[in-house]
Amino acid sequence: MQGDDLSEALTQPLDLLGRLQPVIFSHCSLDAQRPVLVGFSGGPDSLCMLHVLWQSGLNLIVAHLDHQLRPESADEAQSVTELAEGWGLPVIIERQDVKEFSERQAMSIEEAARMVRYRFLFSEAKHRGAQAVAVGHTADDQVETVLMHLLRGSGTSGLRGMAYRSLPSSWSQDIPLVRPLLGTWRADINAYLEANHLTPFQDPTNLDVRYYRNYLRQELIPDLEKTHPRIKERIWRTADVLREDYAVLETMLAQAGEQTLLLRGEGYVVLDRRIFLAQAPGIQRGLIRRAVDLVRPGLRDFDFEMTQAALDFARSPSRSGKRDLAAGIGLFLEGDGLWLVARETDISSAAVSGHRLPSISPGSELRIELPGIFPLEGNWRLAVVWVDDLQAVIRDALANTDPYVAWLDAARLQFPLVVRARRRGDRFHPLGLEGHSLKLSDFMINVKIPRRARDSWPLVISNREIAWVPGYRLAETFRVTPASRAVIRLSLEHSEE
Amino acid sequence: MQGDDLSEALTQPLDLLGRLQPVIFSHCSLDAQRPVLVGFSGGPDSLCMLHVLWQSGLNLIVAHLDHQLRPESADEAQSVTELAEGWGLPVIIERQDVKEFSERQAMSIEEAARMVRYRFLFSEAKHRGAQAVAVGHTADDQVETVLMHLLRGSGTSGLRGMAYRSLPSSWSQDIPLVRPLLGTWRADINAYLEANHLTPFQDPTNLDVRYYRNYLRQELIPDLEKTHPRIKERIWRTADVLREDYAVLETMLAQAGEQTLLLRGEGYVVLDRRIFLAQAPGIQRGLIRRAVDLVRPGLRDFDFEMTQAALDFARSPSRSGKRDLAAGIGLFLEGDGLWLVARETDISSAAVSGHRLPSISPGSELRIELPGIFPLEGNWRLAVVWVDDLQAVIRDALANTDPYVAWLDAARLQFPLVVRARRRGDRFHPLGLEGHSLKLSDFMINVKIPRRARDSWPLVISNREIAWVPGYRLAETFRVTPASRAVIRLSLEHSEE
Repeated sequence: MQGDDLSEALTQPLDLLGRLQPVIFSHCSLDAQRPVLVGFSGGPDSLCMLHVLWQSGLNLIVAHLDHQLRPESADEAQSVTELAEGWGLPVIIERQDVKEFSERQAMSIEEAARMVRYRFLFSEAKHRGAQAVAVGHTADDQVETVLMHLLRGSGTSGLRGMAYRSLPSSWSQDIPLVRPLLGTWRADINAYLEANHLTPFQDPTNLDVRYYRNYLRQELIPDLEKTHPRIKERIWRTADVLREDYAVLETMLAQAGEQTLLLRGEGYVVLDRRIFLAQAPGIQRGLIRRAVDLVRPGLRDFDFEMTQAALDFARSPSRSGKRDLAAGIGLFLEGDGLWLVARETDISSAAVSGHRLPSISPGSELRIELPGIFPLEGNWRLAVVWVDDLQAVIRDALANTDPYVAWLDAARLQFPLVVRARRRGDRFHPLGLEGHSLKLSDFMINVKIPRRARDSWPLVISNREIAWVPGYRLAETFRVTPASRAVIRLSLEHSEE
Repeated sequence: MQGDDLSEALTQPLDLLGRLQPVIFSHCSLDAQRPVLVGFSGGPDSLCMLHVLWQSGLNLIVAHLDHQLRPESADEAQSVTELAEGWGLPVIIERQDVKEFSERQAMSIEEAARMVRYRFLFSEAKHRGAQAVAVGHTADDQVETVLMHLLRGSGTSGLRGMAYRSLPSSWSQDIPLVRPLLGTWRADINAYLEANHLTPFQDPTNLDVRYYRNYLRQELIPDLEKTHPRIKERIWRTADVLREDYAVLETMLAQAGEQTLLLRGEGYVVLDRRIFLAQAPGIQRGLIRRAVDLVRPGLRDFDFEMTQAALDFARSPSRSGKRDLAAGIGLFLEGDGLWLVARETDISSAAVSGHRLPSISPGSELRIELPGIFPLEGNWRLAVVWVDDLQAVIRDALANTDPYVAWLDAARLQFPLVVRARRRGDRFHPLGLEGHSLKLSDFMINVKIPRRARDSWPLVISNREIAWVPGYRLAETFRVTPASRAVIRLSLEHSEE
């Protein structure tokens, strides 16, 4: 070791603690009182971070996720507990089957690990009232992230890399994600660990596409450094500038997002396609990215081509069609609503233009023996009422504007009534249609029942015949005529509570 | 040559013409009628472009700049003339001393060549009523530009690369700059030239930092392609996405620009520092970039560090100081005005808060033998008028609010009056100041004459004594007293015509 290197190795680590004080308290905005939840893998970066934060007098909670992907992971979890206890810090160890999760969610194991980890960290942070979640990304990680995005194709949102403090993040609207080591190079971290006699796990649970990172670390970046000695600093600062540029973009994006968002639920987002298409292309792209982030928070495997595919669909959708994007996200159009939906989400009853849709699980049946009020799924209920005042029926029917109310000739109706979803082969003879019945599926298309709702649309059946398609049409057979003596009033009602 | 390669080489070039039709007429928005001014170096790219545009039936003017940097350049200019005439196209050849220009403007030879070339192209385009200026940048140029910006440090504005059609550009507010080959790879260009038996100049006047481009072309990009075969397409598309992102940023930037711009003239820009500092950092950076582009249109040598230096100065300026940035651009603060000025610009008389400042060239003198009206520089004039009605003087003087008007005791005044700028050693005894005279430079500081205007501020001298500093103060010696018998009225007036 040369004299200069030696002196640097000796002074740098001591300096690091001092140099990081403004980062911790200003850039990351941490305070010394409220607890900080520290994501701790046991690798060099998180070990250095934990030590620095601890030395800075912060109130810390150590959180470690055992991903159960390697045999030694349980032992490592045990070591984490011992280390934390040795430093007098509370520790949370969680074990999760990441492999199973990745299969269920149709995502890569790396992506799944990341998602499980962050969900764990933020759920614990919330539970413990932490002021922030801290993770150990370094300046080298930042440079690698930018290069990775560049080599794979990206926009400003990818090339800008990570921030010292992210709020809101994909993971939380109110708990910030902080990265105290984002401006610290790996070399300084290693020197710090050595000077402080800290020993990280040799092969920690670092699941970031390892091969790719190694290519960047060991081949591309050293190669670039031969011709551009300051390349890492330059890329780091480029990310810094892009982050500022993107912050401006985000203010416009937030505005456009408010105007464009029609509907949002667990696992789905609906955008107003007309307003969407009126935006600048850069905003459209950002809106797709945000929608994907609402449907699958924190997803990274959604690249340029997929954003483009989503944009292409939005611009010229196949009206009847549906487009499967990456990561189990589907895209389809319903009226002017552009839906982005996670594969596992049941949207059959999701509201549209303010109206929730009724639904009944395909395969189930509700049998109604007598008039009365019967609960259905999702706060819907069916009211079946005897009416014998024919004059009143005529008056009410004429004034009625609610498609979820119908009057049927009681003499034709046969109890028990059955409420069920459609079945293969169902036919229907709508009131007023000349001639005979038609396929129920054709009827549903004709009257524009949203495709996603058709399979679970409740039908009222009397003696194996579809008597009523609530919201749309009565069957010819059951219509009230001047000859009707008694009438049954059916109504499908939704209550908000 | 393999069968596939052969068939590609044979079909591709013919295809190119067809593939470029939508680019020419849609992306570049050219029409077949009005002339297009084609920047033509004679190298492969511009030769291919010229041929394609010619084959597409456009109305073309060939424009070639002889940079006079290589001995063979005059011969090349001759060949250009012959080629254009052979194709029946009008041609403009211009010769300019780029080396001299680069020295005068304190910029690199490459930067100077680029600036001279674009100025030539756009001035000819304007002169000839061209609908656009076309230049031969290729898809490879785009990728190289993005990488160059990344390796040197940049923001979205740099990484977004070039556009098929730029309007406004650094060069013109109304004539677009178009790049028909921006989506065409160099390999296809070469194949096209070969198939059409077109021979470019071997070493054309391509002045883009040649060494650096070669490093990218022959080392870095081929290296990246080994691990990322589609890297060029990816970077090209990244630029595409960034351009869309930047377009959004630019709408906000244009807004902020309007609010922030106080003043603009040939070679200088004044921003309102308070409004500037209220902007988001990404906007501040963009405003600096735009200001630099107004002061030195098309400058590329203004990098991250220099933008940062400008920002740092704007955020905490040395009030008395001035900061020299790159490319002969200076930065200083005057009140709340943040000035960016090209070194060669004379801003001594530039207006501030709506008022033009008077000036007289240092070293010159205007001698006034008799009352009358005397023109000064920049549409200013000095009116010297006899007044013998002392009552009227008192009435007018009391009502006067114009600091550019003064009344002097005629008996004390001695013709010829002299109007000149300050000289080393000048002293002044302002009206109302106890005691004696002070250094004129101290007086100027006290009354806050803008620093930039002090050296050319016109002074009225009588018998070697400063009688009046227009806009500020009369000298004690010349004040009108009850004993005065006759009065001279001096006024410095500005007319807009």
